[in-house]
Amino acid sequence: MEIYPPPLERLIEQFSRLPGIGQKSATRLALFILKSHKELSQSLAASLIEVKEKIELCSTCFSLTDEDPCAICRNENRINGIICVVEGPGDQLAIEESGVFKGKYHVLHGVLAPLDGVGPEDLKIAELVARLDKENIEEVILATNPTAQGETTASFLVKILSGKGVKITRIALGIPMGGDLKYMDSMTLQYCLKTRSPVVP
Amino acid sequence: MEIYPPPLERLIEQFSRLPGIGQKSATRLALFILKSHKELSQSLAASLIEVKEKIELCSTCFSLTDEDPCAICRNENRINGIICVVEGPGDQLAIEESGVFKGKYHVLHGVLAPLDGVGPEDLKIAELVARLDKENIEEVILATNPTAQGETTASFLVKILSGKGVKITRIALGIPMGGDLKYMDSMTLQYCLKTRSPVVP
Repeated sequence: MEIYPPPLERLIEQFSRLPGIGQKSATRLALFILKSHKELSQSLAASLIEVKEKIELCSTCFSLTDEDPCAICRNENRINGIICVVEGPGDQLAIEESGVFKGKYHVLHGVLAPLDGVGPEDLKIAELVARLDKENIEEVILATNPTAQGETTASFLVKILSGKGVKITRIALGIPMGGDLKYMDSMTLQYCLKTRSPVVP
Repeated sequence: MEIYPPPLERLIEQFSRLPGIGQKSATRLALFILKSHKELSQSLAASLIEVKEKIELCSTCFSLTDEDPCAICRNENRINGIICVVEGPGDQLAIEESGVFKGKYHVLHGVLAPLDGVGPEDLKIAELVARLDKENIEEVILATNPTAQGETTASFLVKILSGKGVKITRIALGIPMGGDLKYMDSMTLQYCLKTRSPVVP
């Protein structure tokens, strides 16, 4: 009864449905909304509605877009014949931001997770295979994350794609730039030592 | 150009206007909104609009409410004659949750901060003084935070309220329950030692 008034409680409840936002953060956000200008809550509300209405998946690469095909698939300056396979839109953005990759993408929208009931048919794998011939693909770069599930997914894709006349590559595993051996897990260190490369003086 | 599509970028921008939410968190939230059911974004948007429309300040104590006077001011079981003065609605909620206070509140909506241009006229101080006679107040508990600005505000209120025939008290300062002397600042420790109390065996 002597808590916040119901509309405020409802906003706190809605905020706390978002990932990484607990009761305390949700309350802080809701009080901030109350204190700030009406324009902020209206713009945020409008964006929330707009994003669900306008954003769809590119019918070719399944990345997020407001126009089908997406900007990358439409872009004639991008190299054809090389597809970089990523787990999700966030991974695609990270690679785009690095600026090093000029080919096309394919977003799987997940990883294989048999225990959670996610099988090959839940990911955009059949769609990836269909692109190989249609787009005359020469190389598929497997850029799933180096986690247990990402590795499983990469292995599965190797099985599916091999024998189809396409080169299959995997992004490098190792210690990241600026990383510290002290804080690195033993799996990574084992891999780093095994795949050490000769230094040319 | 090869960033996220504009509607998604707009949502990320709106999220990052909220306190404690940077570019990365905003992106994570926006991608979560995209992935989840339409109901979530609609409910959150509706709550954002509703909260700005329905929440107002209680005309007596200036706490947040959707009905004027607020639930606490209306409640006949609350003790009259004692007002607990807090900086903001969050402080009021914390005290309410502790369940120990059964009187009324007065929300200042800020603290004195001359450097930021916040003077006594920007806080609900005149309104507090006006309540003293009208509500026959016997005690005013100063529950501003024990920060530099909170202390300044409390001192100012002492000056304003003294000589008006009302008892003025301040919430206790000390080491919080479960606290650790090692991590306590010296100001608090100095205060704790000075205001030590005799132990009755």
